[in-house]
Amino acid sequence: MTLGGVVGNVRPADRGAKRAARQRQQRLTKPPGSLGRLEDLSVQLAGIFETDRPTVQGITVIVAAADHGVVAQGVTGYPQAVTAQMVLNFLAGGAAINVMARTRGADLVIVDAGVSAPLPQHPDLRVVAPGRGTRDFTQGPAMTREQAEACLRAGADLAAAASERGAAIIGTGDMGIGNTTSASAITAAVTGASPGRTTGRGTGRTDPELAHKTACVERALDVNQPDPADGLDVLTKVGGFEIGVLAGVVLGGALARRAVVLDGFVSGAAALIANCLCPTVHDYLIAGHLSVEPGHRIALEHMKLHPLLDLGMRLGEGTGALLAAGVVEVAAACLSDMATFDEAGVSDREPAH
Amino acid sequence: MTLGGVVGNVRPADRGAKRAARQRQQRLTKPPGSLGRLEDLSVQLAGIFETDRPTVQGITVIVAAADHGVVAQGVTGYPQAVTAQMVLNFLAGGAAINVMARTRGADLVIVDAGVSAPLPQHPDLRVVAPGRGTRDFTQGPAMTREQAEACLRAGADLAAAASERGAAIIGTGDMGIGNTTSASAITAAVTGASPGRTTGRGTGRTDPELAHKTACVERALDVNQPDPADGLDVLTKVGGFEIGVLAGVVLGGALARRAVVLDGFVSGAAALIANCLCPTVHDYLIAGHLSVEPGHRIALEHMKLHPLLDLGMRLGEGTGALLAAGVVEVAAACLSDMATFDEAGVSDREPAH
Repeated sequence: MTLGGVVGNVRPADRGAKRAARQRQQRLTKPPGSLGRLEDLSVQLAGIFETDRPTVQGITVIVAAADHGVVAQGVTGYPQAVTAQMVLNFLAGGAAINVMARTRGADLVIVDAGVSAPLPQHPDLRVVAPGRGTRDFTQGPAMTREQAEACLRAGADLAAAASERGAAIIGTGDMGIGNTTSASAITAAVTGASPGRTTGRGTGRTDPELAHKTACVERALDVNQPDPADGLDVLTKVGGFEIGVLAGVVLGGALARRAVVLDGFVSGAAALIANCLCPTVHDYLIAGHLSVEPGHRIALEHMKLHPLLDLGMRLGEGTGALLAAGVVEVAAACLSDMATFDEAGVSDREPAH
Repeated sequence: MTLGGVVGNVRPADRGAKRAARQRQQRLTKPPGSLGRLEDLSVQLAGIFETDRPTVQGITVIVAAADHGVVAQGVTGYPQAVTAQMVLNFLAGGAAINVMARTRGADLVIVDAGVSAPLPQHPDLRVVAPGRGTRDFTQGPAMTREQAEACLRAGADLAAAASERGAAIIGTGDMGIGNTTSASAITAAVTGASPGRTTGRGTGRTDPELAHKTACVERALDVNQPDPADGLDVLTKVGGFEIGVLAGVVLGGALARRAVVLDGFVSGAAALIANCLCPTVHDYLIAGHLSVEPGHRIALEHMKLHPLLDLGMRLGEGTGALLAAGVVEVAAACLSDMATFDEAGVSDREPAH
């Protein structure tokens, strides 16, 4: 499908199903509101799946990896080779996201969205790379507009395929040395917050290193002048290939009417771009967790999303999304499968006196 | 085992295993600290299970139900009959905790710890009740010291049995109309906080109803003068049978070296009592979530416990514990099963420059 076709066909959540779910929550055998956030979440899921008793089973996390030209500026603590090494670690099953997926019975899709070093062919690796890493966006645009569109289309296709394979929940995950620098630039560009507020320590920058990273983000915005109203322009100028793919996953997940559970800061930046292109995706978005990266909170507040978990995590890979996906499954199951007061013969609250 | 036998035999966590786990976390393929709370949790689990690669699988939630004489004071919005009705709902599989346990593959143990209305015999119901509901503690002690000891022993036995059946994680759950009033009194008695701070709206009290409930807690403390240094005295005077059983579950879980995941406010009050009797239980305690009941935060702070989840829940039944147990499993799996930098051939951080 063309990008315009994806963006133009995302439908809003089903308001009737949401209303029915809200009413059903009042009849379930518990004090009204006592399941807290799970109740709101279940209403959102009813709207996504167009029923007040949704079956929300099957989690797929799409982990997109790519490299970033901005690492030439010395913004990271790990060598660029780690991106490819970590992709191999994903394929071998040794990374945190692999362990979590095994523990939870979730599927993983590992995507080469533009890793710099050559990767061997592997049956579990999807290659959608429009290039081997972005250009250094402190010197000019990170990618061409064609590359940005290719990333978005590829992500939308990946989400459609996951949905066809039975995923009710699609989680986003990222790997890319240097990608918090891109996420900081995107977050500043879209939300209008200063780079000083959107830039954090990533994998462990010291104070002078953080100041340098922030200066790089400022330069990227000065040099490129991304248009905050044009998600494709922001992606082209200060984005990353994996971020573009994840923005496409958000669009494709919304088109397929799936619950899209966002991971942390980099996924949040991807969602900002998707949200620029198609604000209706908001109905499908669930913020899995709050990263310790300061820009993440700014991105979520801009999208009016409230993170489910706050566990001090900042790994990426989809780890926060996968943990939160378990909460999403449970929220739907409670709405759909709990007994009502009538069914269980439980007395409802006494009338006020 | 006698109560003294249980309390006297709880051993501290294994410091050597914790140290080894902390070192192992530094070698896993992720930036140090990037898994946030999961890393601290994994170190605690290493100490509990005495190895730096713990296998933490198998969740059992013990849900204890009982009635409370203090409901005669009009402190609740639901009739007392709901306690028994909800036990039948647990046995029929229709309550929130049932749905969550099915979704997660966890075991439930439903316990009649002293429900007022007669319950039918049922193969899945464990009856350990030392009486049919407590006495109204605004008029004198809630129970006898013998009843309090019987609850603690019964809870310890239930935890031992769950552990023998293979539970690595034992969650606590409660059901009892009126039991947040008891939890408020226990929390005030043990922590020294005023009843005005430890008393909340329970299942939905209005402002005047909350003031009345608070006054009942104040009266309970005035009439009974529980000794904050004596957990058994606090339980006897202002406790509840299910709270005593859950305090016993905490003690028995710690004795069996299992991870004890606490649910919300009522479970927190039970933990306060167990912690009074045996401070070493702290090593085994994991605060599953933060309830919206204001006294819960006070109880957790007193025990220096930090809740994993904060989802605005206040249902009880073990629902918060079960959601958090999933996080506990994942934390242990990451420590035990992730590849190290050496194993995966991933470059570690570059030396500082």
